[in-house]
Amino acid sequence: MARPTLKDVAQLAGVTTATVSYALSGKRPISEETKRRVMEAIEALDYVPDLNARSLSMRDSKLIGVVVPQTEPGDRLMFQNSFYSEILGSIEYYARQQGYHILISATDANESYLTLAKKRNLDGIIIIGMYPNDFYQQMKKTQIPIVLIDSYCNDHYYHNIRIDDAYGSYLATRYMLENGHEHIAFFAGQLKENGVMKKRLLGYQQALGEFEVPFRSEYIFEGQIDYNSGIELADKLMASGLPATGVVAAADILAIGAIKGFYEAGKRVPEDYSIIGFDDVEISQYMTPGLTTIRQQISLKGEKAVELLLKHIEDPTLPKQEEILPLQLIARGSVKKIS
Amino acid sequence: MARPTLKDVAQLAGVTTATVSYALSGKRPISEETKRRVMEAIEALDYVPDLNARSLSMRDSKLIGVVVPQTEPGDRLMFQNSFYSEILGSIEYYARQQGYHILISATDANESYLTLAKKRNLDGIIIIGMYPNDFYQQMKKTQIPIVLIDSYCNDHYYHNIRIDDAYGSYLATRYMLENGHEHIAFFAGQLKENGVMKKRLLGYQQALGEFEVPFRSEYIFEGQIDYNSGIELADKLMASGLPATGVVAAADILAIGAIKGFYEAGKRVPEDYSIIGFDDVEISQYMTPGLTTIRQQISLKGEKAVELLLKHIEDPTLPKQEEILPLQLIARGSVKKIS
Repeated sequence: MARPTLKDVAQLAGVTTATVSYALSGKRPISEETKRRVMEAIEALDYVPDLNARSLSMRDSKLIGVVVPQTEPGDRLMFQNSFYSEILGSIEYYARQQGYHILISATDANESYLTLAKKRNLDGIIIIGMYPNDFYQQMKKTQIPIVLIDSYCNDHYYHNIRIDDAYGSYLATRYMLENGHEHIAFFAGQLKENGVMKKRLLGYQQALGEFEVPFRSEYIFEGQIDYNSGIELADKLMASGLPATGVVAAADILAIGAIKGFYEAGKRVPEDYSIIGFDDVEISQYMTPGLTTIRQQISLKGEKAVELLLKHIEDPTLPKQEEILPLQLIARGSVKKIS
Repeated sequence: MARPTLKDVAQLAGVTTATVSYALSGKRPISEETKRRVMEAIEALDYVPDLNARSLSMRDSKLIGVVVPQTEPGDRLMFQNSFYSEILGSIEYYARQQGYHILISATDANESYLTLAKKRNLDGIIIIGMYPNDFYQQMKKTQIPIVLIDSYCNDHYYHNIRIDDAYGSYLATRYMLENGHEHIAFFAGQLKENGVMKKRLLGYQQALGEFEVPFRSEYIFEGQIDYNSGIELADKLMASGLPATGVVAAADILAIGAIKGFYEAGKRVPEDYSIIGFDDVEISQYMTPGLTTIRQQISLKGEKAVELLLKHIEDPTLPKQEEILPLQLIARGSVKKIS
């Protein structure tokens, strides 16, 4: 079947091609009912508007959509993990410098994000985190420039800003090993195939291999990326009877929870357990002792995402880009040297 | 002089009254130049559109503006204090339940917020924090429903959601006194007349009075509401030579910084200094020991603000309301009983 055209959409929706154009561009008001029919026809036909046609017909809204993950589907945005508030603060700041506003939302805001993007006439979208493959397939239909942050989605429609997650946890684990720890637990969020956590686990394994420390799966503790999960994983480790002296946590918020879990059980960091995090969220320096961690430049991630997105908005022919931002170990007081 | 009319604006701007209407409603596109002339005429005449006329002419945007304070003018939004990310997460969540999106921004986004509100056709605005009086005078001209969070602005145009700040720090200080502390420092942000910090200082003074402990101004340490300021105030207190055993901090983030400041100087909380915060931000429980503090229900503040705003959007005749949310002392481990 040939690629569907504007005419096909109009025919199926029972409206003129001009009406379809208006529905897509928002240039003239049309009734909600008509808009709904047009959108349904677009969905049914898998119609993708021509990019140049679109950019000619749309006035720009100076509005950037930012998709933030939720704690649970339908629940709040992930602001209790300050990684998200920090990156959002950065995105808003750099967008504002260029005269853009940002519209934050989750993906299930009572309507598909596709509809939202059209209705709000978004100039571009920044998507933080990983989503099911369907979502990325859907989002392409917006034909709006999109930058992904922290996704391993390989689709060439999208620009990517991310870090080398495996390398980060390799650095963390190596630091633990260099400080004499051999029995090192790994605290992770959900280990999904191709997901960020799986990559971070890989780095842990690589470092162990380099130091000829055998990998044992009972040292892997899987939870969620939140504070309470950190407490639980610490409890599980203590209950396991494993002779661990160190913990590599795949996120600062997990490490911070774990420190609390140890503390409540009468154990101290770093005296009883050494621990290293990942992210360097702002509060990691607030801890006493400060949390040793892998710093990713959260603010820079936001800045680069805005920069790339605006570049693409200005130049729709911009080839897809991937940018891998640097990582750095920040030694504070949560890892103790043992002999 | 009679109240200026739409006709006066049109005359001054040299356009038709219909054009003024379009400029205000966004119902039809008009040139930027014309819009600018109309806006200037509105400013010059101090014209306030008739509320009912407005609500008839405007289509609703399902968009709520949220004004967040900045770290410095022109700088980032205050997301490093998790009070703001928590309340924003709550506002977004409750707005989303009702099919609204939120547009976050500061007040100086290259243009007056008045222009922004018109251009984006905001259905309502939530303003977090306190601003100069001019700002509140300006904002009334939008004729858009507005809810203020944590403001002591008395203008009857605005709904208010806040707490009793004086009572909160009274509770905090009384708790310190009940635990045997008599030499109690007060760590505050900028003490502006009629500001939140001044109210909190008042509560501290009230509690001292009740326990017949004389108020001494050298025990008041003024800084900014941020982490680094907390460190600095702790340093200043230690350098002062005052025999303080307790600190009442006017914000958790100040208390968290102070704990770090004490720790770096070899002092421990609560062994050497007892400390109590204000807010109960999420990270206060992450601390070891946990921070004893005054809990304000941050999420409830966001929920109430959305509820009140939407009520007003539906019913433009809604009388102005003020809601004072309850406070509660949360005892964790940062205050020690002394004899």
